Amino acid sequence: MNDTLDPKLRSWVESAHDPATEFPIQNLPFGVFRRAGSDEAPRVGVAIGDQILDLCACLAEGLLEDVREGPAAIACAAPSLNVLMSLGRAHATALRAGVSRVLRAGGAPTRYDRERAERILVPMADAELFLPADVGDYTDFYASVFHATNVGRLFRPDQPLLPNYKWVPIGYHGRASSIVRSGTPVRRPHGQTKRPDDERPTFGPTRQLDYELELGFYIGAGTSLGQRLAIDDAESHLFGVSLVNDWSARDVQSWEYQPLGPFLAKSFATTVSPWVVTLDALEPFRRAAFARPEGDPAPLPHLVSVVDQARGAFDVTLEVWLSTARMRDAGLDPCRVSHGSFADMYWTPAQLVTHHTSNGCNLRPGDLLASGTVSGPEPSSRGCLLELTTRGAEPLSLPGGETRAFLDDGDEVILRGYCEAEGAVRIGLGECRGLVVG
Amino acid sequence: MNDTLDPKLRSWVESAHDPATEFPIQNLPFGVFRRAGSDEAPRVGVAIGDQILDLCACLAEGLLEDVREGPAAIACAAPSLNVLMSLGRAHATALRAGVSRVLRAGGAPTRYDRERAERILVPMADAELFLPADVGDYTDFYASVFHATNVGRLFRPDQPLLPNYKWVPIGYHGRASSIVRSGTPVRRPHGQTKRPDDERPTFGPTRQLDYELELGFYIGAGTSLGQRLAIDDAESHLFGVSLVNDWSARDVQSWEYQPLGPFLAKSFATTVSPWVVTLDALEPFRRAAFARPEGDPAPLPHLVSVVDQARGAFDVTLEVWLSTARMRDAGLDPCRVSHGSFADMYWTPAQLVTHHTSNGCNLRPGDLLASGTVSGPEPSSRGCLLELTTRGAEPLSLPGGETRAFLDDGDEVILRGYCEAEGAVRIGLGECRGLVVG
Repeated sequence: MNDTLDPKLRSWVESAHDPATEFPIQNLPFGVFRRAGSDEAPRVGVAIGDQILDLCACLAEGLLEDVREGPAAIACAAPSLNVLMSLGRAHATALRAGVSRVLRAGGAPTRYDRERAERILVPMADAELFLPADVGDYTDFYASVFHATNVGRLFRPDQPLLPNYKWVPIGYHGRASSIVRSGTPVRRPHGQTKRPDDERPTFGPTRQLDYELELGFYIGAGTSLGQRLAIDDAESHLFGVSLVNDWSARDVQSWEYQPLGPFLAKSFATTVSPWVVTLDALEPFRRAAFARPEGDPAPLPHLVSVVDQARGAFDVTLEVWLSTARMRDAGLDPCRVSHGSFADMYWTPAQLVTHHTSNGCNLRPGDLLASGTVSGPEPSSRGCLLELTTRGAEPLSLPGGETRAFLDDGDEVILRGYCEAEGAVRIGLGECRGLVVG
Repeated sequence: MNDTLDPKLRSWVESAHDPATEFPIQNLPFGVFRRAGSDEAPRVGVAIGDQILDLCACLAEGLLEDVREGPAAIACAAPSLNVLMSLGRAHATALRAGVSRVLRAGGAPTRYDRERAERILVPMADAELFLPADVGDYTDFYASVFHATNVGRLFRPDQPLLPNYKWVPIGYHGRASSIVRSGTPVRRPHGQTKRPDDERPTFGPTRQLDYELELGFYIGAGTSLGQRLAIDDAESHLFGVSLVNDWSARDVQSWEYQPLGPFLAKSFATTVSPWVVTLDALEPFRRAAFARPEGDPAPLPHLVSVVDQARGAFDVTLEVWLSTARMRDAGLDPCRVSHGSFADMYWTPAQLVTHHTSNGCNLRPGDLLASGTVSGPEPSSRGCLLELTTRGAEPLSLPGGETRAFLDDGDEVILRGYCEAEGAVRIGLGECRGLVVG
């Protein structure tokens, strides 16, 4: 295992040892930032404790010697991670290893003075974080069999899980233009809706606004048109992961989605978290692929490998937290409404990528492949309100006495994610926030 | 009417008067080109007869005085039309008007010498044409009720046209990364397929490769997230049109498309033609919106305006031509296999754009909105083989004795389009070509 993951590693950045931090030295996710309120150029940084390591400043200070002359150094000055992503896993791995050395207790900066440390660190509290990547194409999968079954039951009671589900990693193209950074308010969309008993549809604000808890994978090195990836090569094209909230207007969706799939029910906004946790950092949290229940078919041969079956899944715990306007007024903290594990997904990330390129479709650096709603087998692990409230029939009870069937204006949805494993330091994915506005 | 459309206008470029030309002075479509085999920077040009007017060269020669100091001049040096598109209709209209003056008989260049004309013109035969725009998001609609009914009958015999069709301009997100320029060979994709009697799916090359004849609209000025366009403002965000071939693998599509729509059945390639014909040039070919048959509902109010109903459709004749390897070996010309009119679409372009932004989804300059397969009421106007051969049951007869249910390797599909109207000069859209390779 890569020495950046050594649980004994310590950083000279004190907040990296706060028990609550998501960003110990074993994590080191990449993002794009600048000092808030400044007109600085957005540039690449790495999260450490409650600070951001400014990679351009490190280079200017003569740190990161190993990458100084290489393309990764140029990538650090870009306003998105796309250039770094395009270089492929090896470059990002080397850069992350260099960052680990800079941040280690006993490493480079302690040989210098506090002033120097202050030149290369920016407090997160003083930073503005941007979209991590310029997403060319956004693909949304449907990789939780629990989600597909729960939702299918509501939309098609006679046939919840369609015959293709266990063979085809179902996915569709999402809208790239409306991907927004965490913290961007989400305006309740208008749309056409028609209740079963209505004679005709009407147009107006959605009455069934929902979130979807997802994990998103950013493509690193691209593929060329016509190139089909073998499953054991697929992960080398994945850069890392972020949280994704694929906001959905359920009443719009059920009226519009046949026969070509969701369109305006989703395209009004998709929120992503600012930090991209690399596959290197996720290494200690690998798991065997989802164990298909007895009777389920084995995937077709191009979607299977010994290695992927043994360790192609990732145990990332994902949570949804909700805060309403009334809760905030009453001084109540956000409450957790569900939590599940990404290891419960029916398909591994490598299977999703392999499937995506199986027709020769090209992937570009920065493309976003989201998992689809992460739901597990338990009621408490249902990753959207549609499932959690059985389409509003069983509203959720919130602190302070409120209930929710779907989202109200003033509700803030906060996605969180973290990884824990025996013998590894806990790491987190940060937050993905969005406040619903009318 | 704009004086660039005057049928009496003549150009000093002789080939602009060839009766077969698609590019008389009344057309003036924009594209991106460079001299073939050169390392010149791709830049903006305008088609005229069998020549390309090099707009950067015009500016260098002191022509196009009206735009020389403005942003449109900078846009001409860009390697895509996105910058020009982003400026909005008025800038493109002014640039096209300036181009018209440069090219008019008795206009600027005749005051100078032949040498100068040669400096600003590049023969199309010597040029390499690029994708006209860097497409951020590609949306594919389904706007022909004839296509939707014909295809629906094959995929869902019990319910060809779903209840939402006459209310919702059905569309879905396509793949932007695999949009290719005309002339790019299209590799037969692999995919999962399962025939009704098969016990399990198999993975291999598609056996039902098809084309789709479509018209594509490029977005000019963008919209912001949350902005809903009124229908009478929608066209001001459209820059112009190209031909689009939305290649489809029908066996992959029928197995994968439920419940989230087409994905790998389409994402392996979409071919677009190089010239973008502006809405200004299409002005003489406007028609009243499609006359909905008795009994069809009126669209919801936000999708209707007096102006759009009166003149929101465009009478563009669209054709599919096919050439097989054996036909080429035998010296046979491509044969036309279908032809229809874009005026037969159930929704106008303004309705499609209005619908697209009705949930606040933002459009960016260069986004491509394709119409969906253009099919009319006649069997001869069916815009894909799926319809034309009733999913292979009634193969097409070709010159030389061949038949086709779906496309074979070596088949070349050529889309063409043109406009004719009383009192107007005929204009064409050029060609959109793709050769199927195994």
